[in-house]
Amino acid sequence: MRELKVELGERSYPIYIGEGILEQIGSFFAKHHIGKASPLLIVTDEYVAKHHLAIVETKLREEGYTVASYIVASGEKSKSLSVLEKVVAAALEAGLDRKSTVIALGGGVVGDLAGFVAASYMRGVRFVQVPTTILAHDSSVGGKVAVNHPMAKNIIGAFHQPEMVVYDTATLRTLPDREVRAGLSEMIKHGLIWDADFTAWMEENASKLISLDQEALQYGLYMGCKVKSIVVSQDEKENDLRAILNLGHTIGHALEAVSGYNELLHGEAISIGMVGSAKLALRLGYPEHIYTVTKRILQAYGLPTRLSQHLNTDDIMSAMLHDKKFMEGNMVFIVPTEIGKVEINKNISSAWVREIVEELKQEA
Amino acid sequence: MRELKVELGERSYPIYIGEGILEQIGSFFAKHHIGKASPLLIVTDEYVAKHHLAIVETKLREEGYTVASYIVASGEKSKSLSVLEKVVAAALEAGLDRKSTVIALGGGVVGDLAGFVAASYMRGVRFVQVPTTILAHDSSVGGKVAVNHPMAKNIIGAFHQPEMVVYDTATLRTLPDREVRAGLSEMIKHGLIWDADFTAWMEENASKLISLDQEALQYGLYMGCKVKSIVVSQDEKENDLRAILNLGHTIGHALEAVSGYNELLHGEAISIGMVGSAKLALRLGYPEHIYTVTKRILQAYGLPTRLSQHLNTDDIMSAMLHDKKFMEGNMVFIVPTEIGKVEINKNISSAWVREIVEELKQEA
Repeated sequence: MRELKVELGERSYPIYIGEGILEQIGSFFAKHHIGKASPLLIVTDEYVAKHHLAIVETKLREEGYTVASYIVASGEKSKSLSVLEKVVAAALEAGLDRKSTVIALGGGVVGDLAGFVAASYMRGVRFVQVPTTILAHDSSVGGKVAVNHPMAKNIIGAFHQPEMVVYDTATLRTLPDREVRAGLSEMIKHGLIWDADFTAWMEENASKLISLDQEALQYGLYMGCKVKSIVVSQDEKENDLRAILNLGHTIGHALEAVSGYNELLHGEAISIGMVGSAKLALRLGYPEHIYTVTKRILQAYGLPTRLSQHLNTDDIMSAMLHDKKFMEGNMVFIVPTEIGKVEINKNISSAWVREIVEELKQEA
Repeated sequence: MRELKVELGERSYPIYIGEGILEQIGSFFAKHHIGKASPLLIVTDEYVAKHHLAIVETKLREEGYTVASYIVASGEKSKSLSVLEKVVAAALEAGLDRKSTVIALGGGVVGDLAGFVAASYMRGVRFVQVPTTILAHDSSVGGKVAVNHPMAKNIIGAFHQPEMVVYDTATLRTLPDREVRAGLSEMIKHGLIWDADFTAWMEENASKLISLDQEALQYGLYMGCKVKSIVVSQDEKENDLRAILNLGHTIGHALEAVSGYNELLHGEAISIGMVGSAKLALRLGYPEHIYTVTKRILQAYGLPTRLSQHLNTDDIMSAMLHDKKFMEGNMVFIVPTEIGKVEINKNISSAWVREIVEELKQEA
């Protein structure tokens, strides 16, 4: 088992990564002094519940905890205020009090939803993340939790750090192949923004990671979490540095919005977005190999690097201009300056971005 | 003008109290370095909007701010997730970004709602309180913000401190007399829990306060805010001491719930609750005058001290046992031990409480 500490002063917490460690979840809870007098609430989705809910409930009950569960529909639609209201109803019915803990068992959607429940229920209770997707290695570090508004993603939320993250890599075997690849897209991003060696390792180990080799997975998740935790430790509330984690996300979020959150998985959308950022780097005069390496790695994982013709450029641009990262009207982009390094560029002309969106439709 | 600083380290903020100071709201904003590049959103209710929205909008615009407003229906029903969703829609339409400020113009309902919007919009933006009720002197100190859930009051919320509070006592002239008295109930509470001299002053100045004598009001609000800020400074997140602010609230909340949030105003409900706590004090062997003084002051303000016969005792008890202050099944009560002092008593038998509820129906 690998262990990583996210350093956030009083709010520091460990991430445990290992195969089959859900078996020990009860002892992790006890070790973290999570009291047994107050009930726990597991929030999960239909798909994950089928595969992993029983063991989590059983192991926590064996340890002496009172456990309730609430199962939401799988997918982004569950990240809404109306589902939040239902989860809170379940929490009240189960008798959760201020010393209770909410557990997110699932991927990013469940993590964001359950995390915001934990942040806001009785103005904040404890929170434990049990990720069951690769993508969740990203969302389980940093404490960003939120639900969507019909007009904008992740617009209602909080910074709420978990007590711990219990990452059982055996659960990843229940992921569809497409989600595995999309999840690895964020792992690649963590290399590209911070660590050239890890980026090279990611390229070499593509086939191992895609086939869920447990040792490679554990190292990759460890490194992905580590990069993210270093960045978050330096800038918990996203005042500056933390923005580098948005590499590929400005275009990526717009693509998700325009394609209706169905056609493209998040990791696929940011894959295309990272190619866009690399193209922006070329325009700014940074070396050509940024673009070739970025594209080559993403292709090694079978991730999309070109934009579908049918997505309308005007729609994409307008989705981007509503994105909350455009503070005070400036267009901000995260741009790679070499492999493993990026800059926060606040002066990107929207005309360039439009041209790049067009070019992304012509990519090989 | 009186000025009070709420001491919360990095999150410290001032409360400005004075007659007619809304005229200067623009300069208060400028003095607090609230930038003009990002729009402001005023959240208010129908009643307050009619009397005070125009001046706030005008003065902020004169100072150079871009101002949008959102008006909710007056009353507790606006403290819901569905209204929150509408306010967030207004914020998005007005183009609020992470450097924007949300302004609560109104009483406790607007403060709680707008405060939770500020706490959660883009995971937190700045917040300014402009109270227009006496009751809001309580809710504008301490940063507790929340909306209600159909099953429980204030159950979804956050701790989110304002940048400043601008308290124009001239606005209080638009309050109905019954709300004036109910608001003064919390002011009396602040005396009872912390300050015997202030309690005596409250008794002597009842008629001045009820008739909205501006000098008396400013002193009373200053002292009420001061007591609350001392308590909150010592225990921002309600781990222990802060619970003393709940004097009268355990029974009070139950009465509000059972009477359907219509029959009794909050201040009226806690008035009855404070008589209940004083009766509990007698049972615990504390001096008789706690009860007589408490009741005499409340009566001087024309506040209710007896419980209406038609409210069902079983319903009241069951509402209390769902109250979130009963952590882990123990019954916790704030009990006065002398005038100006209380204790947090965690071992109050529910049988006693039931008897006291019955007795409150027999009060003179």
